[in-house]
Amino acid sequence: MPGILNGLRVVEGSAFVAVPLAGMTLAQMGADVIRFDRLQGGLDSGRWPLAPSGKSLFWAGLNKGKRSLAVDMSHPEGKELITRTITAPGEDAGVFLTNLRVRGWMDYETLSKLREDLIMVTLLGDRHGRPQVDYTVNPALGIPDITGPEGHDAPVANALPAWDLMAGHMCVSSVLAAERHRLRKGVGQEVVLTLKDVAAATLGHLGMIGDAVLNETARTKSGNALYGAYGQDFLCADGRRIMVIGLTGRQWSGLVKTTGTQTEMAELARATGRDLGNEGVRWELRREITEILTPWFAARPAAVIGEIFDDAKLTWSEFRTVKEAVEQDPDLSPDNPVFTALAQEGLGTFPVPGHAAVFSALAREAPKPAPALGSHTEEILSEVTGLDDTEIARLFDEGIVGSSARRTLYSAA
Amino acid sequence: MPGILNGLRVVEGSAFVAVPLAGMTLAQMGADVIRFDRLQGGLDSGRWPLAPSGKSLFWAGLNKGKRSLAVDMSHPEGKELITRTITAPGEDAGVFLTNLRVRGWMDYETLSKLREDLIMVTLLGDRHGRPQVDYTVNPALGIPDITGPEGHDAPVANALPAWDLMAGHMCVSSVLAAERHRLRKGVGQEVVLTLKDVAAATLGHLGMIGDAVLNETARTKSGNALYGAYGQDFLCADGRRIMVIGLTGRQWSGLVKTTGTQTEMAELARATGRDLGNEGVRWELRREITEILTPWFAARPAAVIGEIFDDAKLTWSEFRTVKEAVEQDPDLSPDNPVFTALAQEGLGTFPVPGHAAVFSALAREAPKPAPALGSHTEEILSEVTGLDDTEIARLFDEGIVGSSARRTLYSAA
Repeated sequence: MPGILNGLRVVEGSAFVAVPLAGMTLAQMGADVIRFDRLQGGLDSGRWPLAPSGKSLFWAGLNKGKRSLAVDMSHPEGKELITRTITAPGEDAGVFLTNLRVRGWMDYETLSKLREDLIMVTLLGDRHGRPQVDYTVNPALGIPDITGPEGHDAPVANALPAWDLMAGHMCVSSVLAAERHRLRKGVGQEVVLTLKDVAAATLGHLGMIGDAVLNETARTKSGNALYGAYGQDFLCADGRRIMVIGLTGRQWSGLVKTTGTQTEMAELARATGRDLGNEGVRWELRREITEILTPWFAARPAAVIGEIFDDAKLTWSEFRTVKEAVEQDPDLSPDNPVFTALAQEGLGTFPVPGHAAVFSALAREAPKPAPALGSHTEEILSEVTGLDDTEIARLFDEGIVGSSARRTLYSAA
Repeated sequence: MPGILNGLRVVEGSAFVAVPLAGMTLAQMGADVIRFDRLQGGLDSGRWPLAPSGKSLFWAGLNKGKRSLAVDMSHPEGKELITRTITAPGEDAGVFLTNLRVRGWMDYETLSKLREDLIMVTLLGDRHGRPQVDYTVNPALGIPDITGPEGHDAPVANALPAWDLMAGHMCVSSVLAAERHRLRKGVGQEVVLTLKDVAAATLGHLGMIGDAVLNETARTKSGNALYGAYGQDFLCADGRRIMVIGLTGRQWSGLVKTTGTQTEMAELARATGRDLGNEGVRWELRREITEILTPWFAARPAAVIGEIFDDAKLTWSEFRTVKEAVEQDPDLSPDNPVFTALAQEGLGTFPVPGHAAVFSALAREAPKPAPALGSHTEEILSEVTGLDDTEIARLFDEGIVGSSARRTLYSAA
C-alpha cells in the first residue's frame, strides 16, 4: 500500500525519542526508512516501558515500519558500509537523519563528498555541543517551576517528553522542506537543530519570553487551571474528576448557563466591578468562579455531568489513569481507525497506532511492527548498498554485520 | 531573504495554538502565509500572556511573519473573498490550513470545485466531531495521573500545551507531504487530523499503550525522576536544584565516578543482588541510589557542581524560573542566532525566536513581527484575489473588509 511519501528513502542513525520518532513518522507516511545500529543494538534498545518478556515496548513503538541494519561501527568496513548506505544512488534517496555525535567519517562534509546532493538533518543537544535531554532542557527553561499545585514549593517536571516529541516532528518537516528544495533546485544541504533551541524558540512563540521580559509579575503555579482564561478541574459526587473549559465566550456562557450559576456570576461581576465576558478577568477571578461552581459538581456524579455537558456542547473531559483510558476509551482501541491490534513477536497483542493524519489521496496505512535488530541487513546490503552475495557472506562470517533473525540462516546457506 | 519554503503560499483560518503555530512555522521557513480573521479579530486575539499595554504576546508570538486579511465572514461577499483567496491561482498556492469548524462554503468539497488541486489540512478536536483542547485531551489520556510528586493524590496537568504544539508541527509536515505528492502526481487532497488522535497515537508510539495492556503494575507518579533508568533532581548546598542524568552506561558510570560513590553503589549492588549497569535496575533502585547521592549534592553549591559536571561531561541542568532563564541564559537571548531583539508595536522590545532549524543552503531568516489585524487586506485583495482598486474601495467602504492600519488611509485616498 503506497504512502504519501512513497519513494523517499531515509537512513537513520539514532537513539531515544526525537530522531527515532522522526524516522518512524516518515516510515508511517510511506518512506523507506533504514535505521542502522551497533551489533548489540542501540543505546535505546532496552528503554522502558518493557513488555512482560523484558523486551522494550518503547523501542517497538518508536521504530515501527523501519528496516534494520546491524553493523559493527567500530570496524573500518562497518563504517564504510554505513557511508555507502547513506550515500547510495537513487533520486529520492540520499537523506540522512541523525542525533549521533558527528565524527569525521559520518559528518556532512565527509558524506556530501560521496553524494553531493545529500540532505543531512542532525538534532543536537544544545548549540554549545553539550548533551541535553528532555529531562534537562525542561528544568533549564522554567516549565517545572510553573507546573503543579498552587503553592507547592518544588518544581514539577512533566511526565511527557514534550520537547523530544516536538523536536522529532521538526526533524520530519526539516527533511521534507530540504527535499522540496532539492527537488526544485537540485541541491542538498545540512540542517541542524538543537533540542534546547526547539524548546527555547517554542517558549518565545507562546509569548512566555515577552511575558518574562516585559511584566513584573511572573506566572506562577496554578494547579490544573487553564492559563489566562477559565478552565478548571472539579471533583464530582462520585469522586471522579472533570475538566471543563470556559476559554471562548461561547464556552463560558454555556458553562454558566448549564450550571445555572447566572445569578452568582452576575453578583460576582457586580461586587468586583469586573466584566466576566473578558477572558483575562475570568483568569484573575478564577478562584471566586471555581468556588461558585464547586457545589454543582459536588452534587452530581461524573457520568451525569458528562451527559449534561455533551448535550450543552461544552468542551470537557474526565481525568483518567492511562490504564483506564486504554481500557475504556474506544479512541485508543481498534474502534478508532488510527489503531490496529497488532501481534508483535516477543511482546504480545495490543492496539498499535499508525500515522494520526489521514491523507485522502491514499488509503490509510496500517501500522507495521518494528523490525528485529538487523533483520534487513542482508536485503539492504544487496539492494541498497549494492554488494554481491559473496561479499555479504564474508561480512556476516567476519561478524562485521549481523542479523538477529538471519545470521544463522545465512551462515547455513 | 529567501527561506527554504520560498514560493509556497498557504492560507490559514485558525485560532489558538496548533494551527497558528503551523502557519507561523511555515512562514518562518519562507512561505507566504495569509491568515484571515473576522473584523473584530480571531478568538485568540486577546489570549494571555499580555504585554503591559494589554496587547496579546501570545498572538504576537504565534502569528509572526504572516500577512493578515480581515473580512466580515458573516457577509456573503466576505465568504466569497475568502474562497477566492484560498483557491487563487499559482502553482505553489492552493494550500489551506484550518482548525475552524467546517461549514458548507469552507469545506474541502466546496473549495476543491474551484481549485481541483487544492490541499486542505484540517485539525479537529476528536474523530467524533467534539471540541477538544490540550487541557481536555491530556486528562483523558492519563498523563496528569503520572505527573507530580510521588504519593501526591491528585492529577497534575502540564503547564505546556504539548499536544497542541505537536499537532501544529504535524500540520506542517502534512502540508509538506501533500505538496510533495501534488508536485509529483498533480493532485491535491484533504488531510484531516485530530488533536486527540495525535495524542493517543503518541502515547502508543512511546510504548505506553502496550504497557497498560500487557503489564499488571501501572506506572505511577515518580516526581522528577527520569522514568525507566536513572535521573533525579537534587537540592544543593545553596538551595538551588539540579537535575542529573544517568540514562546511558556512560552517563551512569560518570555520575558515580564524579560523585565518588563507587563503594556505596557496589555495596548497594551486593546487598540487593542487582546489576546497576542495567538501566531498569537503576530505575527500580532509584530511591536507594538517590539516598547515596544526596549528601554529595547537599555539601556543594549548584555553581560548583555545574563546573564539576561540565568537566566530567555529564548531562545535567539547573532548575530555574522562566524569568531566571530569560534573564540569565544566553541561549534565550540574541547571543543565540535563533533570537533577535525585535521592537514590536504596542508590545516593546524583547528577544524573538526565528525558526529553530538552520538550513545550510540558505541564510538564516530573522523573525518578522506579527501583522496588525488586516494590515495586508488591501495588498492581498489586489495581488492574490485579483480585485481592482474600485472593487477594493467599495469593500472597505461597505465594511466587508477592514484594516486596523490602512482603512482610514484608504478612505482618505
